[in-house]
This record gives sequence, structure tokens and C-alpha cells, in this order.
Amino acid sequence: MIIQIPADDNRERYVCVECETIHYRNPKIVSGCIPVHEDKILLCRRSIEPKYGYWTLPAGFMEMDETTLEAARRETLEEANARVEIEQLYSVINLPYVNQVYMIYRSRLLDLDFSPGEESLETRLFTEQEIPWNEIAFRTIKHTLEYYFADRAAGEFRLHTGDILRQDNQYNFVESVN
Amino acid sequence: MIIQIPADDNRERYVCVECETIHYRNPKIVSGCIPVHEDKILLCRRSIEPKYGYWTLPAGFMEMDETTLEAARRETLEEANARVEIEQLYSVINLPYVNQVYMIYRSRLLDLDFSPGEESLETRLFTEQEIPWNEIAFRTIKHTLEYYFADRAAGEFRLHTGDILRQDNQYNFVESVN
Repeated sequence: MIIQIPADDNRERYVCVECETIHYRNPKIVSGCIPVHEDKILLCRRSIEPKYGYWTLPAGFMEMDETTLEAARRETLEEANARVEIEQLYSVINLPYVNQVYMIYRSRLLDLDFSPGEESLETRLFTEQEIPWNEIAFRTIKHTLEYYFADRAAGEFRLHTGDILRQDNQYNFVESVN
Repeated sequence: MIIQIPADDNRERYVCVECETIHYRNPKIVSGCIPVHEDKILLCRRSIEPKYGYWTLPAGFMEMDETTLEAARRETLEEANARVEIEQLYSVINLPYVNQVYMIYRSRLLDLDFSPGEESLETRLFTEQEIPWNEIAFRTIKHTLEYYFADRAAGEFRLHTGDILRQDNQYNFVESVN
């Protein structure tokens, strides 16, 4: 592999010197759910790095041949053995410093027959008061949960969009449009 | 490169036999704008394949190190030499058969100093009556424009989400949540 700017392009790409194939690299979508049952949210405690032992919403990299909704449902099934009905695209958060875009859907748990999947140590329903705020794995999840409880209190759920930007090892969350 | 299921995974991946690097392949985001001036929309006529000569909204693959909003603004600058203020995430459309997720933002043209970029033959403002519906390059763009004019007539713009599914060479647009 060499790095060069292909003809008709304006950026450096990875190009195979053998077959001349251009290997494009692009940001990835992380799709997931807020699984809701009555006044409680289902969280998963991670059994893998990064953030082993921390709590998160079920979410993961979108795979080929699926939609963002299918990815969110699949991740919820894989990480929590839980089935959901998806209700709303709820948060879209850019993390340009790791080339990820989070898309989290508000959803309704279809039954209470959930249990830890391979990437989880534990799965549990939490009321707002019980949320372990200091043990949430990722900033995107923390912001999404904060929006959720604020919107629930206000009586209206709406899409939230924002960017988490890293500068000098500081992370800032900036709301964008919507 | 060989295709195999890595340890701790449940899917086949491309793995380099030399260095054992796993080359993940994931869907890509296509980010773009509806650039609006008064009652008109800016469209670009494509100077490249696919769909050479057809009209489209400025949009393209999101690159590394940028946010979805930055990608939408950059594509609008590259394809139409146009500057916009982004107002709303307006459509999110999955195309699983080509592993793309379109994210189109409603935006306001900041000035009328636009012109065709390298990938455009022509750039032009269109009223609703003037839109060349039979010469729109992509289904995602057609659905997004239809939503835009319907919402404008109704007096309220809201996020639209959907999937375009291919079966037996037929394409069906299915609205999802929101």
C-alpha cells in the first residue's frame, strides 16, 4: 500500500501498488437504542475494552447490508438479548476525532426477557435516580441519556444533534442544528 | 487477503495474511444540503458518472476528520462553489443495497455567487414548478425534494427517515420512524 492522491481526487488515499485498488477510509456509524420500559432504561455493563465494567446503551458499528434501524435492533439483541420496537431517531452525535457518527434510537422494550450478551457483564433496568452517571462508558451515551430525561420531564421528545470535539485533550460537546 | 471470522467476532472479515490486520468494511455516509434561496432550491447537473447530465443536490461521501455538517458544507462548496448556513438535519435515508446512509441538511444560501464545481456541468436555482423531476439523479434526492415541498406547503419542516429497499430489481421507499 502507498499513500497518494488518485487522478480526479483531491485527497491522499491508500492505494495498492499491486492491483491499483484505492482503499477509501470513511467515518463509521455506531447505531444503538435507548430501550425503555415504563419509567426505566435498560443499560449494559461492558465485558470488553474500552471501558470494561462501565455502563452503556446497547450500540455498535453498523454492518454491511443492514439499515441503521436494523443495526440498532441487532446490537440490542446481541448485547442485551433484548427485543425492541424503535420509535424515533433520537440523537445524532459526531465524534470526528475517532471518525464515528452515533445514531441512537428511542425504543420500547417488547418484553422483560433480557440478559447479558457476550459483550456484557450485566444488564439492568434503571430509573433516572438510579443511573450510575459516574460509570457511564461514553460521552455520547451520557449526553443522550441527559437529553432523554430532560425531554421526558418536558413532555416532548425531539431529535438532538451535536458534535464532541477534542482539543488539547479536552472534550467539548457542541449542540448543532435541530 | 483472506476472508475469515476473527476470534471474538461473528462475521466474515477481510484479513491480511501477511500482517493479520482485519480490514473492516462498513456502510458509508453521504452528506449533503438542500441549499435554499427564497422560494428556490439550488441543484447541480452532474459532470461525472453515475448519472452524468442528471440533476442532484450537492452531496457526497463524508471524509475522515470531519463532522456530517462539515461534510455537507464542503460538498456544497466543491460541487456548486456555494456557501450555506445549515438549519436542520432534514432527511436520513438508508440504501442497504449499496451500503450508504444519506444525511441531507436543510440550509440557507449565504450569497448568490455560486458556479459549477469540477463534478458539475451547471448549477441553477429552481422553483418548485421548475424542478426537472424526470432528470433527478438519485431516488434519495427525489424523495428529499418531495418532502421539502410538501413540508413547505404545510408550513412545518420536520426530520424524515426512510429506507430504499431493492428486491428483484424493484426499488421501494419505506418510511421508517419519525
